[in-house]
Amino acid sequence: MSDRRTEILRAATRVITRRGVRGLRVSELAAEAGVSTSLIYYHFTDRAEILRRTLEFISDRADRYTAERDPGMQSADPRSDLEQVLLLELQDTPEVRENSTAWGELRASAVFEPFLREDLAKATHTWVHEIADLLGRADPMGTAPAHAASAERLTALLEGLSIRWLSGSLPLEHARRLLRNGIDAELDRP
Amino acid sequence: MSDRRTEILRAATRVITRRGVRGLRVSELAAEAGVSTSLIYYHFTDRAEILRRTLEFISDRADRYTAERDPGMQSADPRSDLEQVLLLELQDTPEVRENSTAWGELRASAVFEPFLREDLAKATHTWVHEIADLLGRADPMGTAPAHAASAERLTALLEGLSIRWLSGSLPLEHARRLLRNGIDAELDRP
Repeated sequence: MSDRRTEILRAATRVITRRGVRGLRVSELAAEAGVSTSLIYYHFTDRAEILRRTLEFISDRADRYTAERDPGMQSADPRSDLEQVLLLELQDTPEVRENSTAWGELRASAVFEPFLREDLAKATHTWVHEIADLLGRADPMGTAPAHAASAERLTALLEGLSIRWLSGSLPLEHARRLLRNGIDAELDRP
Repeated sequence: MSDRRTEILRAATRVITRRGVRGLRVSELAAEAGVSTSLIYYHFTDRAEILRRTLEFISDRADRYTAERDPGMQSADPRSDLEQVLLLELQDTPEVRENSTAWGELRASAVFEPFLREDLAKATHTWVHEIADLLGRADPMGTAPAHAASAERLTALLEGLSIRWLSGSLPLEHARRLLRNGIDAELDRP
């Protein structure tokens, strides 16, 4: 992806984080990115494409920061690895806060803007699949359908906790503890 | 509450469900409710108060439809009772769909509109408390802090599943199954 295109998507994420999806106007995005609106239309067909590509951008960025976990952990202790990957989405850093706000906002606006639904369902599916793989490594005696269901629950729980944190209903440390115990509840079923 | 006031809040819920919180303008609300804007300002100080009262209205309405569960179930089988109360929030009826859409939208917009946060945190707390009580009856040997944590997780999971359903990432029947098994994971911990 060209640097300019990435810059525009980074700016779109910032605008969404500040004003929501419905606050994203192409003119404001141009001002935020420091480019002309015609350059934006050179890179993207329309507002719908900007939003779809921004969704992709924040999914990729989340993949990157959740991959930054301690590499020694991987394979050595698959359960800690799983825990780390999920907990990295509940961190009070500007990047994670921005990413989680934009993701929650794209999710919420897909209720009203149906053109986002297909991409969102795909991104959700990819994420669930990754977590199911980690669950499989942490719990090799379990079945694939059980891991898939646990992955759907843990990622939905994480989304629910994340928006409670971002909307001021839940302190971050408490959200992290609830998620950690939620992982235990999924993995230590009788 | 006066009938007229309730009518306005019902109309506000419909507007939020259709256009989101940021789509709620007092003029449009007046048109939807079939009243004048001055009547709206007679009942509510400003847009912020309308949103806060709408949050209260949809919380009360959710209390009402989740109280409509089979009365024979209550006390006879506290676990089924808990399951019913939670699953009644995942139903494809116009009322539940409207209520869940508006709740998710108020939750998401509290990230951007801080004046909603306090009321939202209170409504969340009340809901968590009710579910913790039901967990206490379903699992009398458990501790109150464990029930409180399970209630926070189950309600956050329900919010996460609900918005996936409403945004087209998850079929309703599958969401219900995931929630049912999530209740089992919380209650059948070793």
